[in-house]
Amino acid sequence: MHFTCENLLDDGIVERDFTLGAIPGTLWTPAPAAAASSAAAPLPLILMAHNNALPRREPRLVARARHTAAQGYAVASIDAAGCGERPRSAADERARAELRRAARAGEPLDEVLESFVGPLVTGAVPEWRTALDALLALPEIADGPVGYSGWAAVGIHLAATEPRIAAAGLFAGGYVPLAQREEARTVTVPLLFLLQWDDEGNPRERALELFDAFAGKEKTLHANTGGHTGTPWFEVEDSGRFYDRHLK
Amino acid sequence: MHFTCENLLDDGIVERDFTLGAIPGTLWTPAPAAAASSAAAPLPLILMAHNNALPRREPRLVARARHTAAQGYAVASIDAAGCGERPRSAADERARAELRRAARAGEPLDEVLESFVGPLVTGAVPEWRTALDALLALPEIADGPVGYSGWAAVGIHLAATEPRIAAAGLFAGGYVPLAQREEARTVTVPLLFLLQWDDEGNPRERALELFDAFAGKEKTLHANTGGHTGTPWFEVEDSGRFYDRHLK
Repeated sequence: MHFTCENLLDDGIVERDFTLGAIPGTLWTPAPAAAASSAAAPLPLILMAHNNALPRREPRLVARARHTAAQGYAVASIDAAGCGERPRSAADERARAELRRAARAGEPLDEVLESFVGPLVTGAVPEWRTALDALLALPEIADGPVGYSGWAAVGIHLAATEPRIAAAGLFAGGYVPLAQREEARTVTVPLLFLLQWDDEGNPRERALELFDAFAGKEKTLHANTGGHTGTPWFEVEDSGRFYDRHLK
Repeated sequence: MHFTCENLLDDGIVERDFTLGAIPGTLWTPAPAAAASSAAAPLPLILMAHNNALPRREPRLVARARHTAAQGYAVASIDAAGCGERPRSAADERARAELRRAARAGEPLDEVLESFVGPLVTGAVPEWRTALDALLALPEIADGPVGYSGWAAVGIHLAATEPRIAAAGLFAGGYVPLAQREEARTVTVPLLFLLQWDDEGNPRERALELFDAFAGKEKTLHANTGGHTGTPWFEVEDSGRFYDRHLK
């Protein structure tokens, strides 16, 4: 893990970009002064993946990451292959062009999403695991407990295959491949599942079925009126308390 | 409004029983010492009705009321006619006996619930309004903002007909008569709707349809795994923050 850039932000957060082989990422932590009262205690870590593999620099994700870090967490995000700062292959470009074409033509998108998103998820999870290994070796994190926040598809596959994930906050919006809808039945960690009730592109029934499928004893659904990007800010604070209950 | 009994409880809450004509009730407020920092500010009021018109002395309701009062609220509850400390008419007894018989016989309960619960709701709401008039005349409340917490059926009818209700937290468990399921389409106040995902006696689909029906711009659903009485305690704290956003 190689840190390439460090900034102290005006909210008292240290933002560090890193590379890990071909994987670019960012780590947000409270500045040492702000964390002084609990100087020696390791920071719990939250892996934050954006819905549909949007870039880690996307402003909504960055705002959530900084707010979460300010509550005493280390928050890390990476770009998935072909996303954010990473080069796109010809196959990536073809898949995206086909998705745009199908959307414009008003065709049902399930099949094209399945073939585009499926490999994105199975490719991303080993990279998240690589990032996790490196992050847990940092002294300020030092094997602290680990939570996941964000895209449901990656969260399901990661929580199902990575025993170090202790709690997961999942956004229902964003395509969840068939394999992950099945895999949800094996996810047993405490779960906060966040649904936008009027999300145009993501069928509500499918999201409710997914929530029902999770196998854990503690799972909570928060649904709010509004479309895909309309999640109210107080849900960021609610998520913070969810992580506080399970990671602190 | 006639106060019949006053106790200072060990959590710093003053618990006062009152009568209002034939209606017995209880008011929980933070003790004046605890409220000293905001001496002159009126307390926001929360009307707390127990699911299915259970008695206001039911321990789960009392625990919620005391916790809520400790956050700086006046919390009031009353017994509905034929419930708690109030005498039951021969008709009440017959309706309850019929409900027990049908439940034992494993018959579908909708029809008998409709004829039992419907009049209970329409009878209770004018009494809640009478209580509201009297409570808002108390100097420590003094026309403060008003929220509702508890049984969905009464909350819907009250919020739809009483403009002083500014926010409502509703429990999905408990029969909601057809009239209130329709009336939900006219309820526009901010809403927190609390659902137990595995509630044995209350169909999940019906609860989700009810949530969908509410007309407000801000409505939030919280669903948790577990049966009818299994609502996790952190939902009491979440409700507190919901009221803080709308009543403080």
